[in-house]
Amino acid sequence: MTIAPTPEPPYTAVIFTSLRTSDDQEGYTRASERMARLAEAQPGFLGVESAREGLGLTVSYWATEADAAAWKQVAEHLLARRRGREVWYADYAVRVATVTRAYGPDGPHRSSGPGAG
Amino acid sequence: MTIAPTPEPPYTAVIFTSLRTSDDQEGYTRASERMARLAEAQPGFLGVESAREGLGLTVSYWATEADAAAWKQVAEHLLARRRGREVWYADYAVRVATVTRAYGPDGPHRSSGPGAG
Repeated sequence: MTIAPTPEPPYTAVIFTSLRTSDDQEGYTRASERMARLAEAQPGFLGVESAREGLGLTVSYWATEADAAAWKQVAEHLLARRRGREVWYADYAVRVATVTRAYGPDGPHRSSGPGAG
Repeated sequence: MTIAPTPEPPYTAVIFTSLRTSDDQEGYTRASERMARLAEAQPGFLGVESAREGLGLTVSYWATEADAAAWKQVAEHLLARRRGREVWYADYAVRVATVTRAYGPDGPHRSSGPGAG
């Protein structure tokens, strides 16, 4: 996984922090991969960054808060989230945030591709 | 590490995503621990969540954007960040965001302690 090539702010970040149970590792892994593919296909998806080291952190980036909210309502995602609450997660927090400033080693924000900068 | 017990929004999140070099592991670990202790002692510090799995993600939470900006200017932190740019990180991104909504399995936001809810 790499650092998401997000555009100049503002955009929306959804910070998902979780603690896993030890249940249904196979189903969890399969659903995670499926949800990642589905999210990428959503309107307004900008990128995602994720790591788990005991605590799991996934930050997904969206063009607008409405785009993030629409992804939350996708039927297959609703089902996966229910299974998350019931089986996969011992605890979690979701924080929806508006990114107002961004910078990296080379300047005020990360490029979104050719012509940006 | 646990999920940070942040108060009801709004508050500020600083999302730090990084890719490490393989250099100076010992110095990096020592500085990380020192910076975590220093950050906790700063005005407005609400909590931090962190995981590294190839990609490193650290999200620190602050009462206000000014509190987050003040931490950025602490002398020892400035020195650590310079060393990060020069030695520890192959790449990184910092995103400063305003959390507008937060929820967990039990409701609209996470409790900040007794009486909150």
